[in-house]
Amino acid sequence: MQTLGVGLIGTGFMGKCHALAWANAGPVLGAHPRVRLVALCDTPLERAEALAPQWGFERAEADWRALIADPAIDAISITTPNRLHAEMAIAALQAGKHVWCEKPMALTEAEAEAMVAAAKAAGKATMLGYNYIRNPAHQHAIKLISEGAIGRVIQFRGWVEEDYQADPDLAWSWRAKLAEAGLGALGDIGSHLVSLSMGVMGPIESLIADMQTVYETRPLADGSGRAAVENEDAATAVVRFANGAQGSMVISRAAWGRKSRLGYEVHGSEGMVIFDQERMNELQLYQNRGPKAEQGFRTILTGPAHPPYGEFCPAPGHQLGFNDLKVIEAAEFLASIQSGSPCKMDFAEGLYVERVIHAIAQSAREDRRVTL
Amino acid sequence: MQTLGVGLIGTGFMGKCHALAWANAGPVLGAHPRVRLVALCDTPLERAEALAPQWGFERAEADWRALIADPAIDAISITTPNRLHAEMAIAALQAGKHVWCEKPMALTEAEAEAMVAAAKAAGKATMLGYNYIRNPAHQHAIKLISEGAIGRVIQFRGWVEEDYQADPDLAWSWRAKLAEAGLGALGDIGSHLVSLSMGVMGPIESLIADMQTVYETRPLADGSGRAAVENEDAATAVVRFANGAQGSMVISRAAWGRKSRLGYEVHGSEGMVIFDQERMNELQLYQNRGPKAEQGFRTILTGPAHPPYGEFCPAPGHQLGFNDLKVIEAAEFLASIQSGSPCKMDFAEGLYVERVIHAIAQSAREDRRVTL
Amino acid sequence: MQTLGVGLIGTGFMGKCHALAWANAGPVLGAHPRVRLVALCDTPLERAEALAPQWGFERAEADWRALIADPAIDAISITTPNRLHAEMAIAALQAGKHVWCEKPMALTEAEAEAMVAAAKAAGKATMLGYNYIRNPAHQHAIKLISEGAIGRVIQFRGWVEEDYQADPDLAWSWRAKLAEAGLGALGDIGSHLVSLSMGVMGPIESLIADMQTVYETRPLADGSGRAAVENEDAATAVVRFANGAQGSMVISRAAWGRKSRLGYEVHGSEGMVIFDQERMNELQLYQNRGPKAEQGFRTILTGPAHPPYGEFCPAPGHQLGFNDLKVIEAAEFLASIQSGSPCKMDFAEGLYVERVIHAIAQSAREDRRVTL
Amino acid sequence: MQTLGVGLIGTGFMGKCHALAWANAGPVLGAHPRVRLVALCDTPLERAEALAPQWGFERAEADWRALIADPAIDAISITTPNRLHAEMAIAALQAGKHVWCEKPMALTEAEAEAMVAAAKAAGKATMLGYNYIRNPAHQHAIKLISEGAIGRVIQFRGWVEEDYQADPDLAWSWRAKLAEAGLGALGDIGSHLVSLSMGVMGPIESLIADMQTVYETRPLADGSGRAAVENEDAATAVVRFANGAQGSMVISRAAWGRKSRLGYEVHGSEGMVIFDQERMNELQLYQNRGPKAEQGFRTILTGPAHPPYGEFCPAPGHQLGFNDLKVIEAAEFLASIQSGSPCKMDFAEGLYVERVIHAIAQSAREDRRVTL
Repeated sequence: MQTLGVGLIGTGFMGKCHALAWANAGPVLGAHPRVRLVALCDTPLERAEALAPQWGFERAEADWRALIADPAIDAISITTPNRLHAEMAIAALQAGKHVWCEKPMALTEAEAEAMVAAAKAAGKATMLGYNYIRNPAHQHAIKLISEGAIGRVIQFRGWVEEDYQADPDLAWSWRAKLAEAGLGALGDIGSHLVSLSMGVMGPIESLIADMQTVYETRPLADGSGRAAVENEDAATAVVRFANGAQGSMVISRAAWGRKSRLGYEVHGSEGMVIFDQERMNELQLYQNRGPKAEQGFRTILTGPAHPPYGEFCPAPGHQLGFNDLKVIEAAEFLASIQSGSPCKMDFAEGLYVERVIHAIAQSAREDRRVTL
Repeated sequence: MQTLGVGLIGTGFMGKCHALAWANAGPVLGAHPRVRLVALCDTPLERAEALAPQWGFERAEADWRALIADPAIDAISITTPNRLHAEMAIAALQAGKHVWCEKPMALTEAEAEAMVAAAKAAGKATMLGYNYIRNPAHQHAIKLISEGAIGRVIQFRGWVEEDYQADPDLAWSWRAKLAEAGLGALGDIGSHLVSLSMGVMGPIESLIADMQTVYETRPLADGSGRAAVENEDAATAVVRFANGAQGSMVISRAAWGRKSRLGYEVHGSEGMVIFDQERMNELQLYQNRGPKAEQGFRTILTGPAHPPYGEFCPAPGHQLGFNDLKVIEAAEFLASIQSGSPCKMDFAEGLYVERVIHAIAQSAREDRRVTL
Repeated sequence: MQTLGVGLIGTGFMGKCHALAWANAGPVLGAHPRVRLVALCDTPLERAEALAPQWGFERAEADWRALIADPAIDAISITTPNRLHAEMAIAALQAGKHVWCEKPMALTEAEAEAMVAAAKAAGKATMLGYNYIRNPAHQHAIKLISEGAIGRVIQFRGWVEEDYQADPDLAWSWRAKLAEAGLGALGDIGSHLVSLSMGVMGPIESLIADMQTVYETRPLADGSGRAAVENEDAATAVVRFANGAQGSMVISRAAWGRKSRLGYEVHGSEGMVIFDQERMNELQLYQNRGPKAEQGFRTILTGPAHPPYGEFCPAPGHQLGFNDLKVIEAAEFLASIQSGSPCKMDFAEGLYVERVIHAIAQSAREDRRVTL
Repeated sequence: MQTLGVGLIGTGFMGKCHALAWANAGPVLGAHPRVRLVALCDTPLERAEALAPQWGFERAEADWRALIADPAIDAISITTPNRLHAEMAIAALQAGKHVWCEKPMALTEAEAEAMVAAAKAAGKATMLGYNYIRNPAHQHAIKLISEGAIGRVIQFRGWVEEDYQADPDLAWSWRAKLAEAGLGALGDIGSHLVSLSMGVMGPIESLIADMQTVYETRPLADGSGRAAVENEDAATAVVRFANGAQGSMVISRAAWGRKSRLGYEVHGSEGMVIFDQERMNELQLYQNRGPKAEQGFRTILTGPAHPPYGEFCPAPGHQLGFNDLKVIEAAEFLASIQSGSPCKMDFAEGLYVERVIHAIAQSAREDRRVTL
């Protein structure tokens, strides 16, 4: 394939992220195939028309089904609200397109399974938008752990906290509605935590959990009253991993002061690794090595020794940003398209994340251990 | 009472701590009554004899029952291994002494209840060694929360992690034995976390939990083989508080790199407070106030504005140490003796901590929610 | 102007940075005019040919004079070694091109002055590559100070430390040669510190300074011996600002562990602001406001409240990276081209930075106060 | 000597500190000789009388000359305002007493020299109150550097910042008066920085400096007007050490938010050590060792591996406080009395600190390099 025609659905936060990522994967990382930004799709059409030239797309489109039908387009990015993911992804796959879809995958496990089946049937590349797993700091944590730098892994402490729903006076939105958003904090951000845990800990065996809707109603934006918040603002799980380790996951979208706090401690028999996305260019490492008087947590700043950092900048400590992670993600998707081999967090792997977050919800609702 | 005669049992880590605390409560904090260090008790007698003059005790003693019988002694400090707490405390109370006993209270809830009954019968002052709750930083967190600085309390994240049992090659000790130590990490350090949570969150309603013995056997010190570790190295609980908040508690004595990590985040509807004993002179506060562009976590350094810091030092940021917390504790015990009113963490209140840590262990063993 | 034709000289660290910045200024920030990447220039030609398609340039070029003569090109980026800056910039200006040149401006003040004269004569837009001044965190510091958030400014403590020349065994390079690099640490990174100080403190009145060549010789890469290091590895200055404040600047390229440490404290009569590029998405603010018991340094995470952060990402705390600062820089240069008004750090303003770093060197050589 | 009779002059901040330190040196550190707190001296007598029993002194005294004449007293602590140090110390030495005197030593170098002469003539132990040099973290930094952990020492960056004179509205006090306080920030806190630098860097060869009176007048407490501030609020020096290294010292008593910020970076050819008293139980160490991908600053928490920490607490990371440093200081003074050998920072050594701070002031006044 010489160039890859791309169609992007959605022009919000993640829409722009995908547009920039598609455009930069080649220049920054030398990714192949080269990308041609064919069409940007949103409704109303005016919105897509306003942004298409800025973002470098050849044309705008309002009808996502027409986009999918366009033979000039080989791959589709889906960055629409959660409830549309499954329908769009399946249709795109059936139309023979590669699909890069934002997370959470779908509203229900059944939908997610249908997406996996469609991917299998189509034989096309798929990927879910778990950008944080592409962080060189996290990748280095995985490498350290797999090389035995902290010995046998025994405990995991994971967290994901933001404050975008912390304000009691914030207006009600689709995020609060089961039929639009599905799960709440679990789907939005809990899924990211699960994606990180998979890299450092592997699969979960079983878990117990609790969850909480902190603000049971929210004011309607039009001042006409209040509406119910139908999904959780916070959840906590205690998990057993298949490798014998235990761990916890704390999740909240109502944690004042937390902006992008997403990370973990992995405790091992010989040391500890700590990562947090809020200081995304740092990694903490403790090893029980050398004299006691000089032991301590080491703050490692990422640099060219942590690939592919060096492709962005040859100087260590100069820092990647959030959008850079998405560029790495796009490049890995392009490599998957090119090679025909699945990339990390394709639909099949992403289904596992759905299973975990729904198991947390189920355990909380039924107040019992759930085995995966 | 002009002066209070003190007898101290135990000359280890906590023995020295109590000795220093008794001696400094008056000079630092002006505590009354004044203290007379009558006798230091340990076996063999040589050990007590070697330390008594250094620590300022008038005499040494090997027989704790003789110590308790000494009419010159009004109050007893118990800093012996856990299995001896109940017997000694009850005997001392029955002999009409005030009792300051190290935590955990006892091996079982039944023993702890017997201690409470003995205290009630004796009508003497009692206190358990929960020194961390005396930290001015933690006390200020309680004040902030009670004054509404972070709004309605919605989440608690607590942790207590040390690495004194992190080394797989560490020799087996009494700490690993149920009949000597009772619970493992839960009793040793989990109890401290519960004591802190009581101040900022109030009582727990119910919980679910898991626990883990990371190293199932340890080598015997004499090289003759290995012995079983009978209690847990780590535990995790998801709790529901009576105030409607939820929370988590993570506990480990096998967390490499953690030396005195004991603290919490309290999430509120208008802000967050964070405390950690490893930086014991600092408090983090986030409030949803003022322009968004200037919001952030504030690192408050303790000073004279956080009593009784100023009694130690009139200059802010100059820092208290671990032993200083014990001095505050001794002064509060003296005040309780003087006034006849119970102090924080007397036996009656301390029993609650035992209930929580045993509930965590029970939930983990039975894999079900336990209501307190 | 509909589109702006760009020619870029140099394919190293900064060459790639400029290429990405030119390409992203429109998509991310909606910058006008739109950019057309006409030609990439380097020697040997093969190097330019290899990278031109990856970075999106229409063609490759080996002769920078031919590049400058190309009528399809309106603006030139100069990212070559320091000794070439003046010659290339002047030639480009004389050919009627806008010029974006990396720092340090030139080897000597005389060269820098010639560049300013050429810019004035040409009437074209110019800009020097002081990317760090574009950081929204630094811009917010400037805003806070100018609004009086910390009262009257009284002290400045600035630092810039890296370790790219910290290793005694590192091979000798052109950076060590006066005739190639001019000043050492002062030119490379000291210039960045001066650029930041201008924003928060304004002009310098006079200074005293010292400097140091830590490693007086370095091994030649071919193993044939050692060569002299002709410029400084570290410098320190004590400055008096025109606004009456005093301050210090510490500069080192031999500071082990420092990767991109560049920042300052500004002390005011009512508070303090602290910024450091190594945590480039954070700002520290202390204000003498509210109860003493709650005062502390606030860690502000950048977000949409700190423009133009929101153009990169609408979620706070998600972080910009080093390359993003260059995108902002490119957009400001485009705006300057569009409007005809000078942008921050055009050649005229950049000359001031040269004056300061040469004054530091002069003060150190002559061991006396130098007035600017 | 069986016991040492102690007389203490002054009951302020440092008076209490000395009282506690004398009382705890034996119990905590096993120091010999044992201490007998004979008399506490202050005016009016009522103040001394109120505190003597609380602090454990046998009697109170208002006349310091009578105190010095008391044959039951072997050692004198001087914690009075700066202008009284020389007279009291010399008189005490002439009376055959050992003298522990707070810093700064005296108002002028001439006075300090007279103190040294008196000490030499008396043949008694002397010590100045440089408590921060007793911090186990700082002592470990010295050990690391002397063992070559960071290679050849090349740069020193020192700072000491507090905010006790940061408020423009703070009332005028004796601290602002040359004839009462001598130097300002340099004497109060700059002397501490110099004391730390001596341990890690050795002697200074020459320096250039500037200083600044930020608030030129202050309101009189009685509302009757304003009075001049006669000494400096801030000072900055660039120093050359005898070992060939360079460095900077920044000093301010008007640095909002800084409470006990006192520390340094020592840059070496193979690493860096950082210490700051505001986190007094931590030490940062970077070493150019092992794989680049795992290098970073290590945060070492002090513990029993950093003597004499273990005498205070056998558990690492549990933290010493400010007063604990004074206990170590007292124990070292007792050891000096016992052995007849000088301790660190006796009068002879302390004179050097005076020379440095007065050289900084002189360089600033005369705007020229001053050689020590």
